[in-house]
Amino acid sequence: MSYELFYWPTIQGRGEFVRLALEEAGVDYVDVARESGGMARMMAMMDGPDYPPFAPPFLKANGLIIGQTTNILLFLGQHHGLAPAEEAGGLWVHQLQLTIADVVTEVHDTHHPISTSLYYEDQRPEAKRRSADFIETRIPKFLGYFEGILGRPEPKDFLTGGTLTYADLSLFQLVEGLRYAFPATMARIDAGYPLLGALCERVAKRPRIAAYLASKRRLPFNEEGIFRHYPALEKQDDEATGPTPAQSPD
Amino acid sequence: MSYELFYWPTIQGRGEFVRLALEEAGVDYVDVARESGGMARMMAMMDGPDYPPFAPPFLKANGLIIGQTTNILLFLGQHHGLAPAEEAGGLWVHQLQLTIADVVTEVHDTHHPISTSLYYEDQRPEAKRRSADFIETRIPKFLGYFEGILGRPEPKDFLTGGTLTYADLSLFQLVEGLRYAFPATMARIDAGYPLLGALCERVAKRPRIAAYLASKRRLPFNEEGIFRHYPALEKQDDEATGPTPAQSPD
Repeated sequence: MSYELFYWPTIQGRGEFVRLALEEAGVDYVDVARESGGMARMMAMMDGPDYPPFAPPFLKANGLIIGQTTNILLFLGQHHGLAPAEEAGGLWVHQLQLTIADVVTEVHDTHHPISTSLYYEDQRPEAKRRSADFIETRIPKFLGYFEGILGRPEPKDFLTGGTLTYADLSLFQLVEGLRYAFPATMARIDAGYPLLGALCERVAKRPRIAAYLASKRRLPFNEEGIFRHYPALEKQDDEATGPTPAQSPD
Repeated sequence: MSYELFYWPTIQGRGEFVRLALEEAGVDYVDVARESGGMARMMAMMDGPDYPPFAPPFLKANGLIIGQTTNILLFLGQHHGLAPAEEAGGLWVHQLQLTIADVVTEVHDTHHPISTSLYYEDQRPEAKRRSADFIETRIPKFLGYFEGILGRPEPKDFLTGGTLTYADLSLFQLVEGLRYAFPATMARIDAGYPLLGALCERVAKRPRIAAYLASKRRLPFNEEGIFRHYPALEKQDDEATGPTPAQSPD
């Protein structure tokens, strides 16, 4: 029986990290919420009695309902050859994935630094201030970390050596997303991370990934997802420095 | 040989989730950075060639270096009886832990919504605005989720039933932290989550946890950690609504 992926039907979002793993593994799956009636099924399952997930994405597989992106990847890694079978390697890949997940959360907060229940437009001054910091301090710190992993002890094709894992797929998606959201920044600094760039090309050329990226199953990036291109967030102008902290006596 | 925990020596922070698991499991461990010379050793390992972690906490155990809090707990759960051995139960506990980790990140961002490299005082207007949203929408959503898990299909002692897992220890720490950081809020709403409250009491009374909490090994909450008590962040005054979004033409 097919696996069933439950995720918002119009965005890449966090679900895309799972889609890439399913595609690379050649797993037969249904992207449920993109089918007729699928959204209603997804919403009903979040209220269900069995292992209710806090939020999409979640995966129905082998009779299990598995929530949280990183947890789904842990499962797929073990069952579909996308992670080392031995403990040390499995934990290391999972650790890398958790660090990627941390960056993804920070990317989300560049356009939603105050609240997920407000529109971007209602938190734009704060978004500009957070984005300025993200661009200046966080992107170099994270990309430098992964470039370092790829270079130690000597340049490698993938994060763990010669074999692709789910963390490589996610790193590809992260870099692609950053290039979409912050094109001027990435154009300026991308060449400083040659091993990361080579990894992204290598992932994009995998036969199943290349076929997926060229298909309609791959949704385009857009301004509803995690990686959003808001030109204002890359512009360093006076407004971007944000308000001067008001002093109050408490 | 003892396990070695590497974490900042003066705060509970994310390391506390690991400390609680080590204590409950009765594992022999050294909190390295709290020993003489330990900080230098910790910093050196982050630049080391083998499995360098992105940030503390990390655990040296059985010849492995394991980073990322949730990953360390995955390891401890499997090796020390703090998670179900079978796959479905293990994934479910990990999923719950990842959701707890998401809340912890949001708590951190209530006082640091713009940048981790700035002081709280330099991002206080934004912190007040983010905290107002966290108190109003996020705390009830997250606590309601865990209360629901504890109640389904009928009230349970722990998240998965009658047996404690690492996720229960982390949920205890989360609620304790929220009570410290947002005392007025929690005093107002705590009674609405009776199963969560009972779980916290149950965890605090476990013999090893009770001994730990009464020892000097348990650092007090303070304003350097994740859970910080800044009275201004709970006050709903005019300043807390934040700046009106400035309109610019882009």
